[in-house]
Formats: sequence, C-alpha cells, structure tokens
Amino acid sequence: MAEAKITKRSEDFSRWYTDVIAAAELADYAPVKGCMIIRPNGYAIWEKMQQALDAMFKETGHQNAYFPLFIPESFLHKEAEHVEGFAPEVAVVTHAGGEKLEEPLIVRPTSETIIWHSYRNWIQSYRDLPLLINQWANVVRWEMRTRLFLRTTEFLWQEGHTAHATYEDAEEETLRMLGVYRRFAEEHMALPVIEGRKTDREKFAGAHHTYSIEAMMGDAKALQCGTSHHLGQNFAKAFDVTFQTQEGTREFVYATSWGLSTRMIGALIMAHGDDNGIVIPPRLATTQVVVVPIFRKPEERERVMEAVGKFTLRFKPAGIGFKVDDRDQYSPGWKFNDWEKRGIPLRIEVGPKDLERNQVVLARRDNGQKQNASQEGLERTVRDMLETIQSSLYERAREFREKHTHRVDDYKKFLEILDADGGFLWCHWCGSGECEERIKDETKATIRCIPMKAEPEEGKCILCGGRSELRVIFARAY
Amino acid sequence: MAEAKITKRSEDFSRWYTDVIAAAELADYAPVKGCMIIRPNGYAIWEKMQQALDAMFKETGHQNAYFPLFIPESFLHKEAEHVEGFAPEVAVVTHAGGEKLEEPLIVRPTSETIIWHSYRNWIQSYRDLPLLINQWANVVRWEMRTRLFLRTTEFLWQEGHTAHATYEDAEEETLRMLGVYRRFAEEHMALPVIEGRKTDREKFAGAHHTYSIEAMMGDAKALQCGTSHHLGQNFAKAFDVTFQTQEGTREFVYATSWGLSTRMIGALIMAHGDDNGIVIPPRLATTQVVVVPIFRKPEERERVMEAVGKFTLRFKPAGIGFKVDDRDQYSPGWKFNDWEKRGIPLRIEVGPKDLERNQVVLARRDNGQKQNASQEGLERTVRDMLETIQSSLYERAREFREKHTHRVDDYKKFLEILDADGGFLWCHWCGSGECEERIKDETKATIRCIPMKAEPEEGKCILCGGRSELRVIFARAY
Repeated sequence: MAEAKITKRSEDFSRWYTDVIAAAELADYAPVKGCMIIRPNGYAIWEKMQQALDAMFKETGHQNAYFPLFIPESFLHKEAEHVEGFAPEVAVVTHAGGEKLEEPLIVRPTSETIIWHSYRNWIQSYRDLPLLINQWANVVRWEMRTRLFLRTTEFLWQEGHTAHATYEDAEEETLRMLGVYRRFAEEHMALPVIEGRKTDREKFAGAHHTYSIEAMMGDAKALQCGTSHHLGQNFAKAFDVTFQTQEGTREFVYATSWGLSTRMIGALIMAHGDDNGIVIPPRLATTQVVVVPIFRKPEERERVMEAVGKFTLRFKPAGIGFKVDDRDQYSPGWKFNDWEKRGIPLRIEVGPKDLERNQVVLARRDNGQKQNASQEGLERTVRDMLETIQSSLYERAREFREKHTHRVDDYKKFLEILDADGGFLWCHWCGSGECEERIKDETKATIRCIPMKAEPEEGKCILCGGRSELRVIFARAY
Repeated sequence: MAEAKITKRSEDFSRWYTDVIAAAELADYAPVKGCMIIRPNGYAIWEKMQQALDAMFKETGHQNAYFPLFIPESFLHKEAEHVEGFAPEVAVVTHAGGEKLEEPLIVRPTSETIIWHSYRNWIQSYRDLPLLINQWANVVRWEMRTRLFLRTTEFLWQEGHTAHATYEDAEEETLRMLGVYRRFAEEHMALPVIEGRKTDREKFAGAHHTYSIEAMMGDAKALQCGTSHHLGQNFAKAFDVTFQTQEGTREFVYATSWGLSTRMIGALIMAHGDDNGIVIPPRLATTQVVVVPIFRKPEERERVMEAVGKFTLRFKPAGIGFKVDDRDQYSPGWKFNDWEKRGIPLRIEVGPKDLERNQVVLARRDNGQKQNASQEGLERTVRDMLETIQSSLYERAREFREKHTHRVDDYKKFLEILDADGGFLWCHWCGSGECEERIKDETKATIRCIPMKAEPEEGKCILCGGRSELRVIFARAY
C-alpha cells in the first residue's frame, strides 16, 4: 500500500501532479521509455469517459470499426503535409516472423492513411455518404519528453473518420463533433472549455483547418482537450477516393477526423485536484461514495454494519456506485485520508452515535464540507449531493478561469502578466505566422485558438500593431 | 452495396465462410499481410461480446488496466518455454523517432512478461493478493496462413492476469474463468462447448497447465474458443515476484492468465451460419429486429408507417434493438434478402392487409418460419420470440454436435469416421506424447482436450493399445 506524500500544489505543480498520480495509483511509467501502465484506478476513469463519449457518438449516427495497427510506410508518404508532421515520431517494424520485411511497417500514429485506403473500396456513390466511423485504439508517437497521461509514446484514444459529399457537410460534422467534445468536457468532466479554431501553424498535419477545445489547468496553463479537423479533399486525393454524384459526375470526397485521448485523465487531475490528491467528478467515478463505518467494540461493529447494509441496499437500484470500507486493520482517520487521495467524491461516516439519531455524516471531497443526513431516503440525498458536487466542480473551475483571464493590449504588460499569473490572454493579433512565432519564441505562449465566440472588435496586433478584427487566446500550454 | 453471392455451405465450407463475411460486410483483409479490418457490422458483434464478458469479469472481482504495446526483447527471454513458443512469431520495432533503438522492442504477442514485471512492484504482502486484472487490447502474432477472424496477424482480445498466494487459489481462479467462458459461449453465443484440459503438447508456452473450451463448427471441425492457464510460479520466478506470507516468510506468487479473442466472431459465423449468410444470436445482435414496411401507393406508405411508428415506440423501453427499413429504392424482397445475409434474428413484415387485421408477420432468421402476430403487445411477443431463437440456436448446435460425436475404439475406424464425417471422436489414449503426435501426423486430428466431465472408464489407447482410464476428444481443428 503506497504511503506516498503529496507535494503541495502551490509549491511545485509538476511534482504535485506526479505525486497525485502515484498516491491514487492511477499510472506508472513502463520499462519502455515514454510508455505508461494505466493502473485500475486510472483505467476506471477512462472506461467512464469511453462510455459517455461512445454513447454520444452513437446518438450522432456513428458506428465503431477497427483498422490495423500497422501501416505500410509508403502510405504515410501519400499526403505531403501529413508525412512531414508524423514521420519524425513514428516507430518502425522492420522484422517479423523471423525475417526482414520487404517494406517497413509503421505503428499507427493516427489512422487517416490506412482508413482512407479502405474508404476507396467502400465509397462508390452518393448513397454511401456520409460514412460515419469511429475507432477506439492505441496509437504511438515517439516522444522525447514524456509525462504520464499528458504526453506518452503510446496512448489510448478514439479517432473518428468521416466522409462527406460536400465541403459544407464536412464542416457541419467537424463542428458537430467539436460540440460533442465540449458537452463531454462540461457535463462529464465538469471542465469549462473554449471552442475555437487553430491557427495554420497549430493545425493538424494534413488538415484544411482544425478546431479544438481548450481548458485551463490549476496552474493557469492551457491544455488542448480534443481536436476536430476538416481535412478538405486532401486524403481523398491522396488515396483517390471519389464518388458518383446524384447528377452522375465523379467528385472527390470531403473528410473529417477528430480525436480525444487518455490525456483527458491528466486534464481531470490538473483541473480539479488539490493538496489531498485527485478529485474525480461524480459522473466519471466508478466508486462515487465510500462508506466508512466507525466502531470500537465488536457489538458496535455489528450494529453499525447492519445499518450500513440497510441503506446501501437502496444505493444500487438508485444507480449509485459505492464501496463499504470495513477493513479492520485501519483506523477511520487513515481510511478518510486513503479515499481522499483516491478522489472518491463523497464519504459517508457512520458510528454508534449516528445510529442513535438515525443519521450519517456526509463529507464532500471537493470542498471538505461535512453535514448530517437522515438515513431515511439517504439514496436521494446522496444522488442530489453528487449532482451538487458535479456542478460545484464545474463552477469552481469556471471561476478560476475567469480569475486568470486577461484582456491585454500592450506587449510589455503581456510579458508581465504571463510571468506573474499565466492564464488566458485575450489579445489582438494581425494573423501573421511571423508574429505568432516570435511571440512563441520570446514568451513560450502560443495561440491556443481563435475563439468561436469572440466578438468582432477592431484592434491592433499586440506585437506588430497591424490591423486585427478580433481577439485570440494566448497562453502557455501543456 | 455488395451484391456478393454466397457459395453453398455444403459445396465448399471455406469459400462459404469467406463469402458470408463479405456479404454481411463483417471484415476485409488489410493492405498489410495477414491483418484485418473489422467493419462496423463485425465490430458491433465484438462490442456485444465485450459488454457481456466485461460484466462477468467485474462480477467475479476483476478490474481492467492497460499495459504497454511494446515489450523489451530481453523480457521475452526470461521464461524459457515462453520465448520458445512466441519468439518465432513476433514483430520487432528496431527504429523509432528517426533513430535505431538500443534494444529492439517486440510488439506484444501476449502480455505475461510486461505485466509480471509490474507485479513485482505491486505485490509485497499477502494483503495485496489476490490481484485480479484484465486487459482489453490488440496483440500481434506473425502468421503465414491467415483467415479472417480465425487466424490473423493482429487480433483483438482480452487477457486476464491474476496473482495468488497458493497453488490452490490459482487453480480455483483458472477454473472460475473457464466457467465464465463456458457461460459466455452457451448463454450469449448460443454455442455448446466442452470444458477440458489441454495435453502438455497443446498447453500455453509457459503454463503449468491449460484448460480450454472447445466447440464444434458447422463442418464438424473443432474450434478452441477460449483458454485459461495455470501458470504455476513460472512467471513469478522469471520476474522475481514474491510476497510476505501471514507467517512472515517470503514465497513466490502463483499466476493465471486467460484469454478470448475476435476469433469468437469466426466461431459464431461457422456455428450458426447457413446458405443465406450469418445468423447472429439475439443476445449478440445490436439490431435484433428489422421492420420492413410493405406498400405500393403513397397513402399505403403513410398508413403502414404510422402503424410501424406506433408499435416500435414500445420496442426501445422493452430493450429491443431494431431498425425500420423504409428505403424507397429497394423492393421488400430485396430487403428481406439483404437483412438475412446480415443475420438479423427477426424480421417484421407489415403491409396494408396486415393493418386491416391489426397484425404483422414475424419471420425468423434461424429457421425461416413465419407467423402472424397481433400488433397489441407486440413488444412482448418479439421479446419472447428472440429468446426462443436464442435457445433454438443453442439446441440446434447441440444436436449437430451430438450427431457428429463418436465413441471409437479402433484406429482403422477412427480414420474412416474422420474422413467420412469428421466430428468429435471420443477415444482412449495412453497419455504419451508419441501416440498423440503420430496420430496428428497421420490424420491431422489433435487431442482437443481431456474433458472434465469424462467418466472414468478402463480402455486401451486407440493407437498403441496401452492402458487408459478415460476418453479424450480427438478432432480436426481450426
């Protein structure tokens, strides 16, 4: 049993993050450089994320499929920007079955190429469109500097790959899935995000344009939380995928792709965690409630456990995930601490004195508040409390983001605020790659996105003073 | 839209199998040799299998986790039998991130080694045992001769890896999970299976002993459908995993592993399919019912669709997965055929004449029978009918197996029956690897298992005449 101490978050955010993961037993580094082992507590969060997203994908008409792990090296070269973006970070299989392969195989860093090779056979006419497919898979991108969940050589994700008859249909899909990601982040992760468009420098290698949702972490840095790409006809042209239109002509197909990964577990930790460890939003917690019975003597144990048995009997039909921690070798205080660092949203304490009053004590993980509650109808009280915790987490994260959001019009002030506070800096930008790059080189801040809800506003580029029509978001990011 | 013709099953079973997969759009070969693309119709079956198994794993106390795709080559060499079994079929990553790797990485063919390397850190004392973990993952085993679902270079599976304090606890777990597989096969796949122990020749590379469930396919050949291994202390010793006992001594841990793969989709096709295509057991069908409205004139269409809307409204709350095929460009007959080859368990036909009688026609996929049913309470009728289809499929497969099961005591007869009928041959065997091997060389029949329910019975080995105490099952197998 790990007795790891957690560094204070304010002291060293990076060490705090690592300590939280170790204390909650979420993941380990693997013996292979940059790879991770997702431990049961971490994987349980991923499973909940998968369930929520998968249901939303299916509601919006998508089906799951599975494409191969290995991609012939030549495929990668068919789309010029794509190969430039991904070739430097691929892992290559050169030998198999005891022999050298004629053509090396790359381990998929993403699956556009192998999928569009198939779509050529699947798509003949406008009747085959739209084709709406998603895949849950592992992918590999060789990374030099890795951090658990945030940046690892192998990670788990879903990648959607769709085909459409027109540019407009593809655009609609790209935005629809961005909206699915936003809803997932807000409603399940309790994470407020900003929808926006990436600059050309930051878009996906091979995309026409890219949208993302961006969130603020507990150190006021930004994290990209999901991307949705309009691929134009780039991959259709690279893999010669055309369809017969209703009018009988042949046209290249339009494409989208969109992905969200185990990185979200890192986002969850960094957005909601505190000095006691991870805080799991109730909707993503398999164990939402832990019951800690309190007793000294055997006859107290018996009476307390009988009451616990009674009220937890109604938890399962109410859809509440719970655990009863009746281990005898640990004290209640030790257990409180143990479950806190594992991020269980709600703790129920119940001892002999509570029995006399037919009550229990509810202790919230998010803010530490305690209150008494009747054992009558406890399942309803608990369910309501879990919803309250879910929305409080969202609200707290939103307030934090507002507090660390700045409208800045002066480059000197930009530098000051960035160093003093970090956060999201809404600034005017002329639209040039040069200004974008120079700001990045000088400050490590990047344009996170051109927000979709930005109000039109005349202004001057924060660096060069050139004309600008709306503010974009600069931030230092993971 | 594929208009592929399906070869008669009796004519050429192997071509029939390939045709069925193409007609139902279950899978394609990938551009990488031996790899497959699991298309949405095939993947939907796998998702249902996953849900059923995952629930059973969790009920029996297991948690999911995820271990890396890549394994340092040296790990494979730590267990002597294991490396001998798997080294010839691994794929090897030699380059990554643009550089040659210091140590080549193998793509996991199975995860015992990487997992037991972790367990060394996770297991300290008897309190950490049992450790009950499962992983859903892709694995790679380089194959020369491949068949979709049955034998592919990459496949999807689950692999359970558990650690226990005693040999007996590990044996109990090994048998418990074999039982889970049996229940899954029988209750969800409608597939009768025989539980048994593998001979030493056929056991898993690195196991103390292996159990399997064996099923009979529609050509009377055998298919191994899931294996559960008692690994003894082999991997604990190879990776130095010990624990402190309650008495304070240190002992090596006992291990099990067990796996079931996308091969089961092949089993499902070969066990239940017919000349019209795949037949999906209702519990594994996402679309359990297809409704085909029949009409000629627009006003008929309107009236029929109104009735369809009414009765299908009650399908969802009743937990029935359904589709309404109201495509105007296809005739009802074309649609019947289309959904038959996709294996949808039940078809509902409804036209203007049915409306007059307030009825519909139900057509079963498994045996082609049609019957009228009232639109009142149709959801109950349909639910009952689906259960009937589920159990009929099981019963039909069981009868087929009985018909092709033979008790044989003479080697000449053994050869005759094997060539004329195939099937399961219950025979006496002396227990020697030599006899087992010679029979395999001469007949291509292998010992599928030593059945757990075999009655003790004195007899003579079918080949050498040596002493035997029970019958084992010989069969030609996939």
